[in-house]
Amino acid sequence: MSSQSVVLRRRPTGAPSRDDFDVVSGEIPAPGPGEVVVRNIFLSIDPYMRGRLSERKSYANPVQIGEVMEGETIGEIVASNAHGYDLGEIVVGARGWQTHTCCKATTLTRITPGGAPLSTYLGVLGMPGTTAYTGMTDVGRTKPGETVVISAASGAVGSVAGQLAKRAGARVVGIAGGPDKCLFVQEGLGFDACVDHRSSDLDAALADTCPDGVDVYFENVGGAVQAAVFAKLNVFARVIMCGMVSQYNAAELPPGPNLGFMVAKRVHMQGILVSDKPERFAEWRGLAAPWVADGSLAYRETIIDGLENAPEALAMVLNGDNFGKMVVRVGPD
Amino acid sequence: MSSQSVVLRRRPTGAPSRDDFDVVSGEIPAPGPGEVVVRNIFLSIDPYMRGRLSERKSYANPVQIGEVMEGETIGEIVASNAHGYDLGEIVVGARGWQTHTCCKATTLTRITPGGAPLSTYLGVLGMPGTTAYTGMTDVGRTKPGETVVISAASGAVGSVAGQLAKRAGARVVGIAGGPDKCLFVQEGLGFDACVDHRSSDLDAALADTCPDGVDVYFENVGGAVQAAVFAKLNVFARVIMCGMVSQYNAAELPPGPNLGFMVAKRVHMQGILVSDKPERFAEWRGLAAPWVADGSLAYRETIIDGLENAPEALAMVLNGDNFGKMVVRVGPD
Repeated sequence: MSSQSVVLRRRPTGAPSRDDFDVVSGEIPAPGPGEVVVRNIFLSIDPYMRGRLSERKSYANPVQIGEVMEGETIGEIVASNAHGYDLGEIVVGARGWQTHTCCKATTLTRITPGGAPLSTYLGVLGMPGTTAYTGMTDVGRTKPGETVVISAASGAVGSVAGQLAKRAGARVVGIAGGPDKCLFVQEGLGFDACVDHRSSDLDAALADTCPDGVDVYFENVGGAVQAAVFAKLNVFARVIMCGMVSQYNAAELPPGPNLGFMVAKRVHMQGILVSDKPERFAEWRGLAAPWVADGSLAYRETIIDGLENAPEALAMVLNGDNFGKMVVRVGPD
Repeated sequence: MSSQSVVLRRRPTGAPSRDDFDVVSGEIPAPGPGEVVVRNIFLSIDPYMRGRLSERKSYANPVQIGEVMEGETIGEIVASNAHGYDLGEIVVGARGWQTHTCCKATTLTRITPGGAPLSTYLGVLGMPGTTAYTGMTDVGRTKPGETVVISAASGAVGSVAGQLAKRAGARVVGIAGGPDKCLFVQEGLGFDACVDHRSSDLDAALADTCPDGVDVYFENVGGAVQAAVFAKLNVFARVIMCGMVSQYNAAELPPGPNLGFMVAKRVHMQGILVSDKPERFAEWRGLAAPWVADGSLAYRETIIDGLENAPEALAMVLNGDNFGKMVVRVGPD
């Protein structure tokens, strides 16, 4: 059995491109004791991946030159040396930009297909959805009538975070790039308003859409959007620091906001990482799968065909050129 | 009965000075129903007062031109029209830079003198001590073996915060200005180390004194000290945002740190204001009064004589020229 893998050729400067990676072929090892081989069907593309391409220290070690690029997949078991893991079973949690992954079976989660498309287990029902759920549960703690602002509102995390805030009875304002995304955020996701950060006077648009200030901010982007929302925070506001994608390609980090407002407004700001609470993945799948099945939890995906196009897919995500959750179709369902 | 008051003449530019205030004389009104007149003995001088002199919006309304300047006192009831409040009783909680305050008796807390000097009810046993207790209890939640850094470590808040961290079993590193304060922080307060921000290479000194990074940071100053400590924060660090005195005289707020570390390190940063939890004042007095009495909770005070010197006392606090809690002696004990 032979497979393709995308390995890191060199560390990108600025936006990653195809030239920063090599596609290599190789043999799939036979699974060792307790291992299975997964034929990957969909590969998740996420902003965090930029951090793995950089030598800059973060919460995880960078991918080394020549190593297979990091990413989560959903796929089918095609070889098994693990008791109770059968050929043909669908599993999420194999890792790597590759057509086949050989790994410990216990790192995988079995999925019973049928209710939701397989790709959703990488998005609305997977890591991004669980991230949104964790942030809103642990930090957001939205109360009815509060105003919640979500940046990257049409994205995989933001779209779920905002819908959870709506379910909690909040007024929800999205921030997204371009009229198509803003329309989707309002019409498709049911947010109360959406500000287009590409065309608006952000301060004026936030003043207009958040007349009572901002009680909860779910931060995915950083930069000018962050500064504008921070200026509108109310006393006792909560800020979920989930990501700052606007600076992931930057060589030098720009300065941030003066933090005097943290004292004056008694703001609670907290960084989150979904893997800190692994139990939340199953909890969220149990909660949200029926909502996806009955259509009450909306989501959007961009599916790119072909493993070799994963670098471009990542560049799109980092530039905001995707629409909703970005996945790469590695092989047939 | 006549009294003196210090009223705001004009809003200071930069550091406040005597010329920004007027000392005026007037009659004390006879207390109305439920009111008492307090002869103030000590007046508390605190960094937050700079905010009241500015038109810049904060958590409280600014003092208006011609109004008596804001501040908390401890004093003696010299006239009473309130049932159960007797002449000669010592009370804390009257407000204003003035020799006599007429106010509702229910806003006051009766003190039984004897155990601790009266001035301590404005410092280690009062608002600053309660602030430190609230921050360490609600946000710091120090665990044994953790490293805790305290800025303005010899000050009224920092000295208590650090001693609470020591009681919790932490390694405690202070940051203070000048060798005298640093010596006191180590020898008098029992911190494990103290960095002099006026003479040290701050990054090197923190690397040296915090070899395992920083788990809890109690922020009183902002600026370069803040940046240096933030760079040393560990995963799951907690930051108590209590004040940023280094910028209180500034006309324009400088930019702050890039907040990428909040995500990467999953930092919990929270602003606190002691008056948000009024029940903590009595709780802290009950806990700490025996520690002050038996000498196990150390503190330092600077006492300036004469109400007319309150503006200079405030300027000293804002410039770090005080040593420990700053109080003005308004009248005899």
